[in-house]
Amino acid sequence: MTTCPIEDRFALEDLTVAYAHALDSMSDVEAICACFTPDAVYDLSGIGMPKVDGHAGIRELFTGVFAAMRHQAHYLSNFAVTAYAGDNASVRTYVTGMGLSKDGTQVTVNGRYYFDAVRTPDGWKFANYHMDFLMPLPGSLDTIHNS
Amino acid sequence: MTTCPIEDRFALEDLTVAYAHALDSMSDVEAICACFTPDAVYDLSGIGMPKVDGHAGIRELFTGVFAAMRHQAHYLSNFAVTAYAGDNASVRTYVTGMGLSKDGTQVTVNGRYYFDAVRTPDGWKFANYHMDFLMPLPGSLDTIHNS
Amino acid sequence: MTTCPIEDRFALEDLTVAYAHALDSMSDVEAICACFTPDAVYDLSGIGMPKVDGHAGIRELFTGVFAAMRHQAHYLSNFAVTAYAGDNASVRTYVTGMGLSKDGTQVTVNGRYYFDAVRTPDGWKFANYHMDFLMPLPGSLDTIHNS
Repeated sequence: MTTCPIEDRFALEDLTVAYAHALDSMSDVEAICACFTPDAVYDLSGIGMPKVDGHAGIRELFTGVFAAMRHQAHYLSNFAVTAYAGDNASVRTYVTGMGLSKDGTQVTVNGRYYFDAVRTPDGWKFANYHMDFLMPLPGSLDTIHNS
Repeated sequence: MTTCPIEDRFALEDLTVAYAHALDSMSDVEAICACFTPDAVYDLSGIGMPKVDGHAGIRELFTGVFAAMRHQAHYLSNFAVTAYAGDNASVRTYVTGMGLSKDGTQVTVNGRYYFDAVRTPDGWKFANYHMDFLMPLPGSLDTIHNS
Repeated sequence: MTTCPIEDRFALEDLTVAYAHALDSMSDVEAICACFTPDAVYDLSGIGMPKVDGHAGIRELFTGVFAAMRHQAHYLSNFAVTAYAGDNASVRTYVTGMGLSKDGTQVTVNGRYYFDAVRTPDGWKFANYHMDFLMPLPGSLDTIHNS
């Protein structure tokens, strides 16, 4: 396991939790943006969803997501710091993501988050983010996000 | 994220895990009480269950719960210290709570726990506790606890 | 809660996550072995699966598991250090384990992991491991692993 100072480890774990909490606010797009650098790469293509650029892209994506969804819940576990070099770190977590769209479609996604984080004057921020599946995708994710 | 000394952070997280472990013991009402101050407010009205007062109320509630249930499992994640001021702290966790009643009804609850904790001579204890839903409640919770 | 130095607590938690990550690699039997002492007792009899001895037994078991399974996902939570004495520690975690076999059978197991760990020249390793159920076993685990 990578050696990472305790304060940085907690800050990185807290940032993953802040991200999940923002996702599940169902309204606070700016709280999502606040977890990322302004020019972050936000890439959900690994689960068949969009890849967007920076805060502008994140805002547009989640304006749509929050308009379409009634509930979301993102449970994180298996937190790991997989790389650390002073002002740069990589983090992996598992996620169980649940969603219920306003038209009644329900979906549960079992996957992993991968973050590259950088230390900024405002604390650690994610500069790069992608995810993959642990279990196969139910067809309902497609139904929700591409209809 | 709120600044909280490492020892207190661990003690608070351990207390949430001790609470889940006691819930899932299926018998140890005193271990549940030991997580709370004697006069704690224990409020599950946010998920349509009782609000009770102090150890006496908790004992009565869980004597009934343990008599009715065959299995419980409470998985916590997304731990966050949301406020900290020396001898007082607030904590939020996500929970997936599963139950199987003796009459065969199964329920899964996806929600959040909110705790206000105080430092006591016996360590941190919860003085106030409530929860809300992340995902809509299945009808079966009602079936189990109000029948 | 048992007193355990911070570095050891993190090392023990990281070891549980490394174990889950290795289980879900779907190929890396050696990464599973690396979490255990060469002569570890690896005992899944509590959930109706094999009890095997040491790296040789783990290798044989997981060569079979990885041949039979298409996906696995092991979500850990409720980490607790339940005993600590310098070079020995005991750890408990909750687990939600999901599997999809190549013949299409799906299973979800809700249980607890119990590890006895020892400090070695290569860091903490698990010397003893068993698990139990939190929720009743669906029949499908049997279908997957004993057919």
